[in-house]
Amino acid sequence: MGSPARRRSRPKIAHPPRRPKLLLPYWESKHSLQGADNVTQFERAKSGEITPEMKFVAQREDLPEELIRSEVARGRMVIPANTVHLTKRLEPMAIGIAALTKINANIGNSAVTSDEQTELEKLHMAVHHGADTVMDLSTGKNIDTIRQAIIDASPVPIGTVPIYQMLEELGGDIDDMRPQHFLDMCEKQAKQGVDYMTVHSGLLQEHLSLTMQRITGIVSRGGSLIARWMMTHRQQNPLYTHFEDLCDIFRQYDVTWSLGDGLRPGSIADASDEAQFAELHVLGELTRRAWKKGCQVMVEGPGHVPMDQIDMNIKRQMEECDEAPFYVLGPLVTDIAPGYDHITSAIGAALAGWSGAAMLCYVTPKEHLGLPDAEDVKQGVIAYKIAAHAADLARHRKNARVRDDALSRARFNFDWNEQFRLSLDPETARKYHDQTLPQDTFKSAHFCSMCGPKYCSMKITQDIRDMAAAEATNGTESEPVAIQLP
Amino acid sequence: MGSPARRRSRPKIAHPPRRPKLLLPYWESKHSLQGADNVTQFERAKSGEITPEMKFVAQREDLPEELIRSEVARGRMVIPANTVHLTKRLEPMAIGIAALTKINANIGNSAVTSDEQTELEKLHMAVHHGADTVMDLSTGKNIDTIRQAIIDASPVPIGTVPIYQMLEELGGDIDDMRPQHFLDMCEKQAKQGVDYMTVHSGLLQEHLSLTMQRITGIVSRGGSLIARWMMTHRQQNPLYTHFEDLCDIFRQYDVTWSLGDGLRPGSIADASDEAQFAELHVLGELTRRAWKKGCQVMVEGPGHVPMDQIDMNIKRQMEECDEAPFYVLGPLVTDIAPGYDHITSAIGAALAGWSGAAMLCYVTPKEHLGLPDAEDVKQGVIAYKIAAHAADLARHRKNARVRDDALSRARFNFDWNEQFRLSLDPETARKYHDQTLPQDTFKSAHFCSMCGPKYCSMKITQDIRDMAAAEATNGTESEPVAIQLP
Repeated sequence: MGSPARRRSRPKIAHPPRRPKLLLPYWESKHSLQGADNVTQFERAKSGEITPEMKFVAQREDLPEELIRSEVARGRMVIPANTVHLTKRLEPMAIGIAALTKINANIGNSAVTSDEQTELEKLHMAVHHGADTVMDLSTGKNIDTIRQAIIDASPVPIGTVPIYQMLEELGGDIDDMRPQHFLDMCEKQAKQGVDYMTVHSGLLQEHLSLTMQRITGIVSRGGSLIARWMMTHRQQNPLYTHFEDLCDIFRQYDVTWSLGDGLRPGSIADASDEAQFAELHVLGELTRRAWKKGCQVMVEGPGHVPMDQIDMNIKRQMEECDEAPFYVLGPLVTDIAPGYDHITSAIGAALAGWSGAAMLCYVTPKEHLGLPDAEDVKQGVIAYKIAAHAADLARHRKNARVRDDALSRARFNFDWNEQFRLSLDPETARKYHDQTLPQDTFKSAHFCSMCGPKYCSMKITQDIRDMAAAEATNGTESEPVAIQLP
Repeated sequence: MGSPARRRSRPKIAHPPRRPKLLLPYWESKHSLQGADNVTQFERAKSGEITPEMKFVAQREDLPEELIRSEVARGRMVIPANTVHLTKRLEPMAIGIAALTKINANIGNSAVTSDEQTELEKLHMAVHHGADTVMDLSTGKNIDTIRQAIIDASPVPIGTVPIYQMLEELGGDIDDMRPQHFLDMCEKQAKQGVDYMTVHSGLLQEHLSLTMQRITGIVSRGGSLIARWMMTHRQQNPLYTHFEDLCDIFRQYDVTWSLGDGLRPGSIADASDEAQFAELHVLGELTRRAWKKGCQVMVEGPGHVPMDQIDMNIKRQMEECDEAPFYVLGPLVTDIAPGYDHITSAIGAALAGWSGAAMLCYVTPKEHLGLPDAEDVKQGVIAYKIAAHAADLARHRKNARVRDDALSRARFNFDWNEQFRLSLDPETARKYHDQTLPQDTFKSAHFCSMCGPKYCSMKITQDIRDMAAAEATNGTESEPVAIQLP
C-alpha cells in the first residue's frame, strides 16, 4: 500500500492509443491531466471543463456536450473510464438517466470451471452483441492474467468486485481479512485499469439482524462475506470505516464507485424489506461522501422484485442517493423459472429502465444453476438489449424508434435480408427463417412459412393499397370507401 | 346451413365423459341442458344457476362459486366450453380478471409445412408446459382431420379462426366468399366442438382509409382478408352485417366469442392509432349485442405496443367493452428482435396481465420468421407462464406467491431436486445444473458452479445463522450485533 503522496501521483501513460476508429481524440486527457488538480470526470465537469471523453460521449448519445458535462457534474451521469484503460482500447460511454439505457454482462471464471481463452471468448460474445460494460467476476485461478487480458482487449468499461480476488489471495478465509488487504487489492486492480468496482460498503453490523427472517438470507456474495467478517470480529464493516481511503484510491485512477447492495433480496418474499432499505439509506450517505472526495458514483440495486414494487424501488433509490445512476440486477419478477431467468429478469429490467434505472445488469439462463458459457452470455445480452431498448422506447429517448421503424418497413416490403440485418441477432433471425424456406428466392418472397402465400396479411395489405392506387389513377368513383394514399 | 329451428336444437351428447380425474361431475350439464331455455354459461349464470362447470372452475381457482357465477353473469368472465367438447376430455377453465391470468398457445399447420402428428405433438407440448387454451390456426391440408384429433385429445379449450378453413374450402380466393360460406363454416366447427372462435366482425369499410398511412398496414390475417373482400365488393363486412346470425350459432353450442382485432398494430409505429381504436369501439358495440343474444364474449387486443402505452390500451378496452375479458397478443414492446419475440412480447404480456388482461396469447421465437415447431411452442409457453405468473404476483392474486416461496426455500436449503421439481421446466433446470456438476452428490452440495464452494452466499448466510444460534445457546454477550432468530 503506497503512501497518500504516492497514491495521488498520476499513473504513467506509456502507450499511445491503439484504437484507430475514434471519432474524437479523447486521449487528449493524457495531456489535460498533467499537473491538474482535477483528475476525475466528476471533478473536471464541476470545474466547468468539457473533457474529450464527454465530447466523445456526447457524439455517441447525440446529446449536447454541455448537457453531458452538467449531468456528470451533478452526479447524475458517470463515465467509467480508468485513466489507465483510457490509454488502451477503451471507448468512453455514459451511464445516467439522460443517456440511453445501458446493459452490463458478467463474465469471469469460478473455482469449478473456465480459463482465460474461454473468458476472452465470452468478452467477445458480450461486446459483439452489444454489452455496454462487462464485469469480470472471476473467483478461480489466474485472476490477474485473465483480467489483464480482458482489460487489454476490451473497448467497453470493465468492472470488478475486488473482494473476490482478495479472498483468493488470502487463501480463502474471509476472517483473515484486514482492511489493508482490501485497500491494496483495490489499488492493484485500479492500476490494472479497472473502470468501476463494486464494493459493499453500505452493509453495516446493525443491519444483520434484519436479514434473519428472510427466506433466502444474504444472496450477494460480497455482502455475505462482509457479514461473516463482521460476525466473527464483532467490528463494523471495514469497507465502511475505510471509505475515505478507498475514495483516495478510486479518485487517483478515476475508478467509478459501484456501491454494492450486499443486502439485495434473493427472492420475491424478501423484496423491499427493512434490510434492503436500511442499506440503501447508507448507500445514499456514501454517495454524497464519495462526491465530496471527487469520485464518480453509481449505486447497485435489486435483485428479485415483483413488478408492482419496481417503480417504487427506483424512485426510492433516486431520493436516497440524490439521483446517482442506478445500476440494477434484473430484477427477477418471479422465482419459479430457473433456466429462464434471462426472461424473468428481462421483464423486470425493462420496467426498471423505464422507471429510470441507468444500467441493467444482465442475468443469463444459467442463473442460480451454474456458470454461464459463451452461448449463455449471448442469450443474456440479447434479452437485455431488448429490455433496454424497450425502456428507451417507453421513455421516448431521442431517435429510439428509428431502428424499429426501419425494420418494420423492411418487413412490410418483404426485404428479408434487410430485416435480418436490422435485427439484434441477424444470424438467428436468418437461421429461423431458413429452417423451412432456405432457398435464396424466398429472401424476396411475399410470405413466410408461418402463413404461407395465401394468408400473408402484409401481402394482402399491399394488394389492397395497389387496388386503391389503381382506382385513384383511373378516376373511379371511390364510394363508399374513401382511401387516402400515403 | 340449417334453419333457425334446427340450429336451436341441442347437439347430441353421445359419450360419457372419459376423463377420470375430475373434481366434480361437471358433465351434469348434459342433464341440466335438457329442455332448458338457457344454454350458455352466460345465460345460466344470469338466471342464477351455478353450473357444474362454474363449480369446477371455482375449485380450480380457489374462489367462491357465487363469485364465479356473478362474474360470468356480468360478462367479466368466460368459461369457454362447447357443449360437444364437454362430452369429451375438456376440463372447464375460466378467463376473466377475477381469475388467474391465462395463456394461450397457437398451433396449426400452414400450406408450407406440418401434418397431424406434428400438430398433436405441439398440442401435447403446449398443455404439458401449462397452456390454458390452445388455438388451432391450421391453414394447410387436412384441416378437419387435424382439428378433430386436437379437440378429441385436448383437456383445454380449443379456439379457431374459422375464416382460414373457409378460405381453404373456397379454393383460396377470398373474393368468392358469400356470407353463408362463413356461417356454415362456423356451424361446422361448432359441431366439431370448438370452444371459442376468433371472428373479425369489428373491422368496417369506413376504417380502411385509416390504415393507409401505417408502416405495416393490416397484419391480422383474418382482418386483411375481410379488408380485401370489402374493397372488392364495396360492401360492408359480412361478419358485421350477419353478427346476429353468428350469435345464434355460437349460442347453440355455447361457443365463446373472441372478437378479433383485425386492425391491431403490427409495429411500434402503428400502435394505438385511430384505426385500432375505431375498430375497438365497434368491438364494444358487438360485445353488448352478443350478450343480448346470450353469448359469452372475450375481446382480442394488440399486438405491437411500447410499454408506456400498454396500461392505457387495457383500460380503454375495459371502458369500450364493458370489461369483457381482454385477450391480448403479446404485445411486443419493440420490433427489433426477430428470433426473440417470445421475450419482447413476454415483457408486454406481463405488463398487460398486470393491468388486467385476462388471457395472454403467446408468441414464439419463430414469430415473423416461420411456423413454430414443438420446441418453439415450448419456448413460447414457458415465456408466457412467466409473464402470467409475474402478472399474478403483481396483482396480488390469492396464493400466487406460494410456489415462489417454496422454490426459494428449496434453493436456500440446497435441495436441488426440489428446486428443479418446483421449476416451470424441471428438465431444463436440471440439465443446466448438470452441465458442470452432473454427479448425484452435487444434488445436495452447498454451492453450484456459478460461485463454487467459497463464494456461495447462501452457504455463508447459513453459517452466519449457525454462529448466531450457537451464541444464543451459549448465552454469549451478543454485543454489538443483535441477532433475532426466526
